Amino acid sequence: MAKVVAIGGGSSYTPELVEGLIKRQDKFPVQELWLVDVEPGKEKLDVIAGLARRMVEKARVDIKVHATLDRRKALRDADFVITQLRVGQIAARVQDESIPARHGLIGQETNGAGGLFKGLRTIPVIFSIIEDCKELCPQAWIINFANPAGMITEAVFRYTDWRKFIGLCNVPINMERSIAQLLGVDPQRVRMDFAGLNHMVFGLDVYLDGVSIMTEVLAKLGQGQSMTMQNIQDIPWTPGFLKGLEAIPCPYLRYYFQKDEMLAHTLEEHQQGRTRGQQVRAIEKDLFTQYADPSLAEKPPQLEQRGGAYYSDAACNLMTSIYTDAGDVQVVNTINDGAISDLPQDVVVEISCVIGREGPRPLTMGHLPLACRGIVQEMKAYELLACRAAVSGEYEHALVAMAVNPLVQSEKKAAVVLEEMLLAHREHLPQFQDAIRGVSQRHEINS
Amino acid sequence: MAKVVAIGGGSSYTPELVEGLIKRQDKFPVQELWLVDVEPGKEKLDVIAGLARRMVEKARVDIKVHATLDRRKALRDADFVITQLRVGQIAARVQDESIPARHGLIGQETNGAGGLFKGLRTIPVIFSIIEDCKELCPQAWIINFANPAGMITEAVFRYTDWRKFIGLCNVPINMERSIAQLLGVDPQRVRMDFAGLNHMVFGLDVYLDGVSIMTEVLAKLGQGQSMTMQNIQDIPWTPGFLKGLEAIPCPYLRYYFQKDEMLAHTLEEHQQGRTRGQQVRAIEKDLFTQYADPSLAEKPPQLEQRGGAYYSDAACNLMTSIYTDAGDVQVVNTINDGAISDLPQDVVVEISCVIGREGPRPLTMGHLPLACRGIVQEMKAYELLACRAAVSGEYEHALVAMAVNPLVQSEKKAAVVLEEMLLAHREHLPQFQDAIRGVSQRHEINS
Amino acid sequence: MAKVVAIGGGSSYTPELVEGLIKRQDKFPVQELWLVDVEPGKEKLDVIAGLARRMVEKARVDIKVHATLDRRKALRDADFVITQLRVGQIAARVQDESIPARHGLIGQETNGAGGLFKGLRTIPVIFSIIEDCKELCPQAWIINFANPAGMITEAVFRYTDWRKFIGLCNVPINMERSIAQLLGVDPQRVRMDFAGLNHMVFGLDVYLDGVSIMTEVLAKLGQGQSMTMQNIQDIPWTPGFLKGLEAIPCPYLRYYFQKDEMLAHTLEEHQQGRTRGQQVRAIEKDLFTQYADPSLAEKPPQLEQRGGAYYSDAACNLMTSIYTDAGDVQVVNTINDGAISDLPQDVVVEISCVIGREGPRPLTMGHLPLACRGIVQEMKAYELLACRAAVSGEYEHALVAMAVNPLVQSEKKAAVVLEEMLLAHREHLPQFQDAIRGVSQRHEINS
Amino acid sequence: MAKVVAIGGGSSYTPELVEGLIKRQDKFPVQELWLVDVEPGKEKLDVIAGLARRMVEKARVDIKVHATLDRRKALRDADFVITQLRVGQIAARVQDESIPARHGLIGQETNGAGGLFKGLRTIPVIFSIIEDCKELCPQAWIINFANPAGMITEAVFRYTDWRKFIGLCNVPINMERSIAQLLGVDPQRVRMDFAGLNHMVFGLDVYLDGVSIMTEVLAKLGQGQSMTMQNIQDIPWTPGFLKGLEAIPCPYLRYYFQKDEMLAHTLEEHQQGRTRGQQVRAIEKDLFTQYADPSLAEKPPQLEQRGGAYYSDAACNLMTSIYTDAGDVQVVNTINDGAISDLPQDVVVEISCVIGREGPRPLTMGHLPLACRGIVQEMKAYELLACRAAVSGEYEHALVAMAVNPLVQSEKKAAVVLEEMLLAHREHLPQFQDAIRGVSQRHEINS
Repeated sequence: MAKVVAIGGGSSYTPELVEGLIKRQDKFPVQELWLVDVEPGKEKLDVIAGLARRMVEKARVDIKVHATLDRRKALRDADFVITQLRVGQIAARVQDESIPARHGLIGQETNGAGGLFKGLRTIPVIFSIIEDCKELCPQAWIINFANPAGMITEAVFRYTDWRKFIGLCNVPINMERSIAQLLGVDPQRVRMDFAGLNHMVFGLDVYLDGVSIMTEVLAKLGQGQSMTMQNIQDIPWTPGFLKGLEAIPCPYLRYYFQKDEMLAHTLEEHQQGRTRGQQVRAIEKDLFTQYADPSLAEKPPQLEQRGGAYYSDAACNLMTSIYTDAGDVQVVNTINDGAISDLPQDVVVEISCVIGREGPRPLTMGHLPLACRGIVQEMKAYELLACRAAVSGEYEHALVAMAVNPLVQSEKKAAVVLEEMLLAHREHLPQFQDAIRGVSQRHEINS
Repeated sequence: MAKVVAIGGGSSYTPELVEGLIKRQDKFPVQELWLVDVEPGKEKLDVIAGLARRMVEKARVDIKVHATLDRRKALRDADFVITQLRVGQIAARVQDESIPARHGLIGQETNGAGGLFKGLRTIPVIFSIIEDCKELCPQAWIINFANPAGMITEAVFRYTDWRKFIGLCNVPINMERSIAQLLGVDPQRVRMDFAGLNHMVFGLDVYLDGVSIMTEVLAKLGQGQSMTMQNIQDIPWTPGFLKGLEAIPCPYLRYYFQKDEMLAHTLEEHQQGRTRGQQVRAIEKDLFTQYADPSLAEKPPQLEQRGGAYYSDAACNLMTSIYTDAGDVQVVNTINDGAISDLPQDVVVEISCVIGREGPRPLTMGHLPLACRGIVQEMKAYELLACRAAVSGEYEHALVAMAVNPLVQSEKKAAVVLEEMLLAHREHLPQFQDAIRGVSQRHEINS
Repeated sequence: MAKVVAIGGGSSYTPELVEGLIKRQDKFPVQELWLVDVEPGKEKLDVIAGLARRMVEKARVDIKVHATLDRRKALRDADFVITQLRVGQIAARVQDESIPARHGLIGQETNGAGGLFKGLRTIPVIFSIIEDCKELCPQAWIINFANPAGMITEAVFRYTDWRKFIGLCNVPINMERSIAQLLGVDPQRVRMDFAGLNHMVFGLDVYLDGVSIMTEVLAKLGQGQSMTMQNIQDIPWTPGFLKGLEAIPCPYLRYYFQKDEMLAHTLEEHQQGRTRGQQVRAIEKDLFTQYADPSLAEKPPQLEQRGGAYYSDAACNLMTSIYTDAGDVQVVNTINDGAISDLPQDVVVEISCVIGREGPRPLTMGHLPLACRGIVQEMKAYELLACRAAVSGEYEHALVAMAVNPLVQSEKKAAVVLEEMLLAHREHLPQFQDAIRGVSQRHEINS
Repeated sequence: MAKVVAIGGGSSYTPELVEGLIKRQDKFPVQELWLVDVEPGKEKLDVIAGLARRMVEKARVDIKVHATLDRRKALRDADFVITQLRVGQIAARVQDESIPARHGLIGQETNGAGGLFKGLRTIPVIFSIIEDCKELCPQAWIINFANPAGMITEAVFRYTDWRKFIGLCNVPINMERSIAQLLGVDPQRVRMDFAGLNHMVFGLDVYLDGVSIMTEVLAKLGQGQSMTMQNIQDIPWTPGFLKGLEAIPCPYLRYYFQKDEMLAHTLEEHQQGRTRGQQVRAIEKDLFTQYADPSLAEKPPQLEQRGGAYYSDAACNLMTSIYTDAGDVQVVNTINDGAISDLPQDVVVEISCVIGREGPRPLTMGHLPLACRGIVQEMKAYELLACRAAVSGEYEHALVAMAVNPLVQSEKKAAVVLEEMLLAHREHLPQFQDAIRGVSQRHEINS
């Protein structure tokens, strides 16, 4: 019987997780579910815990739901620790998106300038959770959903000695389901090879009943057939481009291959005061109103608009396969280990893996198609720079990370945006206090 | 006694070459210099040949200058073949710059959309020269100056079996001289380690009398000290950026790290009808007027405005070191062979090499600094895509190459620009005739 | 319904295969089994075919058994082609073992000097089978059991364009079963990670119910607990050696890490006229007497002494998983593709793979333990040399392959043994006819 | 003006070094030469210092010669530190050779079982010298001649943070001179590409006046033309073998490719009480008698029999090129850094390098010929195991290193020889004290 801890348990996604655990209770019997959050999230945490208890009760399963602000108490003897926290809550996300937008840049809380800062804020918190886990639950698996999930996983493998850490994302499972829908077949019959980085993953092959149908799928997608996610604007791909790409791009690749259109859309949303963060704030407000309703005892359908479709399936499938030593193939963020020939062996990638009790083991994918290779290599170099900055807290490390990001490409704008963001997020960047003081002083002198 | 053949001999740069050969006649005795050009360049060729003969005569050296439109006649038994041709002359360059600019993109005849088409036009011609060399001068070294020099060298090593081919550029030698000037020391005392790709090369270390002074140089450059070339707008680098970069970027890296500013500048030039190609046209007109003056018997100083400073030194130093088995270090484009750990072994790089009679042998440089790594890897993937397109003539190959270029990043704009450029350059793209027919038909149907 | 063709169908192992197919008929329904052999094996083929038909009949399954000397007739529309042939029959094996032994060397029909010649004889035949398959059954999977299985698979991937080829061996499955036996547990509960080369494979980890028990297993094996196969002399491993090795060596590694003892044993067998080939000849004689008995309708227990335990399971599990797109993990010889970091990407390795309809996909294993790494790299270099020789037929290629083999290590003895073997096997080495003529002439002159 | 320190200054080779410094005094002006040795070597040190002073005086150069047992006094402000020490003196070497020979193994003080123990004894001493250098002469270059030079250099780069360390050997320079002699040409006209490991280096190409003459040289060497060194038995290479090897093997490769003959020779020498160590003892006795003659003021010709031909040239050329920032090519042991594609980037190799003030920079060599590749990879894995053992002092680490050595190949004999050698050398193996106690106890119990 397993003990599961969700850090950031007050997240609006948590009902998905609870639903997933309930459904899998026969194969993956959870005895305790601990929801942990920080003081500013206490109210939401209580709402979620209440709903979770009603869901468990209605389903007549034997999961004990705990809610607490005491992380260490929750972690003791945990089997699985899910990190889905957001340092600085939605307010920080709005800043991550707005400051870059004011300077004509895509903020984007995962791959853009915003994502860099989300990483800089989150990595120290993840490291402190790991310190607790070393002491309180050294046998636990940590499954991280916090974005940027790839960068965070990279930081953990590069700068800590904790190895039972898996970065997880619902993008690959969404792509697989979308392709099944596109083909009009049962998702069980569809299987894909995935390789790349988090939010920069490519489908390298698609099998229907074990037979590759890649050419057909690329053709269909190029005929304007849609495949995106709730939170990314849907612009159809040009047919010839997909054929030349020789891979199925994840929706986030629009930021790199349709940058102008995505930038225009982002700036428009920003001007209208509806950045994605602001939209999420509104959606969440509605959701929590529903969650608080004592008659609600299941996940409300509106949650799907939030962008986390199949999040529960991804997390619960992974925990179940580890728990049962299943040996099936799932897509996670882990050490490359030679799976993608175009990246160093010791970096984190998002990749199809066999999942057993000992964790994920990547399947070899060889070389990425040429048209996918360069952007993946560049983003990995960026991630490594970002991780270095997150650990060192040095101004120049952060500057150069931001400047080489393909959504920035301007060392001048990078410097301006960097400084505004350092100041805006100063309370969540303990490692950058010297750098922030320097920036403050220069700004004072200049003004 | 050597025989040197310059294909594209009517180039305005040729007097530089002649001057360089004259200066080195004791170590590198040239008996015959053949200037070859195509019919549309005949007039210029004659002017250049006249000037070259007057220069040789004035210098009292024994070099016989030949001018011909018969390439095969010139190549027989050549020792060195310099390719400095421009397929489609300046008119093609103006198109390469203008069509992208009309769609808000940097054309840039080496790294941008323009450079892609310059490559697509030039590679088949280089291949046909190689065919002639196999037959007429199998022992010759081909030294290529035609841009994009890196992409062309890559295509030769990837798709032909000719190995005595070196891509050459005057950027590294310019950087070394600029640093010496910046330090106020004799250039002989300065030595640099170079690694990267053509027009994307980085100075990884600088030595004064054999002692590294990298930190000091990066600090100086970050204090607004200029280092650029005649043909690239000079925007100072931010100090913190250079410190974070841990390398000295070549001037062309402004296109990637100062993209917004470079784009604005490019579009402004375009709107004013003074793209770089148009400027060059004007400069060349002046130059040829001078060249034609029968009283002129030396390289006129205005040639330096043309952007080819030290071109002669680069070419003549290289030929001299091969001829004399010198074993000194020079920077050329050749097979990586493990020198840069972040790139495959079998791709072409621009790298410091020991030069002997057997050709260039790269020095190992290990890993590039992280902030340089990603963009170099991405551009190499782009170059490989471009070479594939140049050989296959397939529409999708060209489209995907253009779309992933970091100066494009839009598959939609890529498609539009690609099609306009295919039509504009149709007479110089024999391999794309099927693709061009398809584009024409679609355009007719749509209009 | 599948069609299976066994080339070398007259092998004494075939009843194993028939038994395996019968057992799996529900999941892997075979309609036709074609047994193919060459003229000198006709008698055995008929005996085997008779037994196979009686087995099928007794089991009341609907498999039609065909026996033929016409390979092309058999191959048409095959789904699976199993190559288990022995070029030159047992007589050739006896030579492979005896000639080296006469010069104090381990012949060993897989890794030693004998194995080199078995490869040189077999590779051209496999290539000709592939040529037939291209024409007659381009969709078929070829599953090769002929030794040296690793070298043959390497030759196919390196020198042909046929990709649906898998090298298979019963060593890994034997090791897994031995470990289960050693632990006294159900084999289903034991899982191992395998990586290396054929007959040079290492168990890198052992899991019991998904939990690593490697340390315990290495300790048990070091306490003199046996793990070998029928055809390899059992010498216990020194405890400290296994601990330092950090891996479970396959029984064949005794030839490299217990070379003196194995050599002494080999030479003793040779002197007594009981080389392994001679023993097999005797065992087979007995077996075929039994097989021919019309009252026998099942695999006789004596077959296990022959050394092919679990051969049937290995082959039938593989075909079944491909046929059913199972996605389970099995150990086969296929392209490395980054799975073992210490070997090039494009070489063949023996490795744990996920098996689906699209074939095997290796799991990443990272670096081999240091003490396993060197010998694996050396044997791979040897295999590549051997393949080059098998294709070129050049004397020097064969000589250098034999000389660098770690069971030879003497260029002088290599030359002597090479020449004797070239002459002894001359009728089965079409590619070496020039070399053999040269050797003959020299020998004549010298005598 | 430079200060040079020779640790192991009482070596019989030192007069070579003194002669070399005298000859180069104009380009490489040495002000002080410090000869350092340990108490048991005091007598020899005094003899050498006396001779050195007479040589300097006779040559009328201004080098001040100091002799001391106080290493720290000597090291202060040194520019070059040459380590040529022998831990345990000749007596230890005799053990290194005799113990393996008693068990039928080649001891060989560099690559065999003897070499392993020489490494285990020497590495801790080198590390302690480095500790002193960090404090007393952090700017110095350490040039190591002590064998096994490759293993020691590997240990320094892997387990210390000192980077100004170069492993040096006279084998490559001897090979180059031998080839010149073979061709009957001035050595200045011959140039070779070298790659491999120390005492396992290959000449990959030979140039005469810059033109490759590899084919001719391989043919000549295969016609029985000798190329060996004073201390290695000369057995001619078989012509076909060299042709297949596609490289010129260094004389030490006889131990791997002519193992039987070398073993027979070694065992014969051992039985006759004339192991190489015993021979050297006799030669040295004669040499020191001469050295002590106050009328001797130059290097006596008999020194060449000692096996150190060109040792002085190798060392002095290297120091001179560093001192003068020469930029010429020399062969040293340093970090691979991609130069040899078949080895990891971070291991030490013996390789042609450009030598400047910043130290050696390898030239890229690409892949080794297949027939050289495997043995080099295997020996590198062995060296890494040996270095691990030298640092950990663990019994199993030493056992596995010895067992995988291609001159051992027997885990049984490895264990026996290991234990005898641990006991024999116990006073020079501080890191193995626990292991040695364990061995002693087991031996007592068993006896």
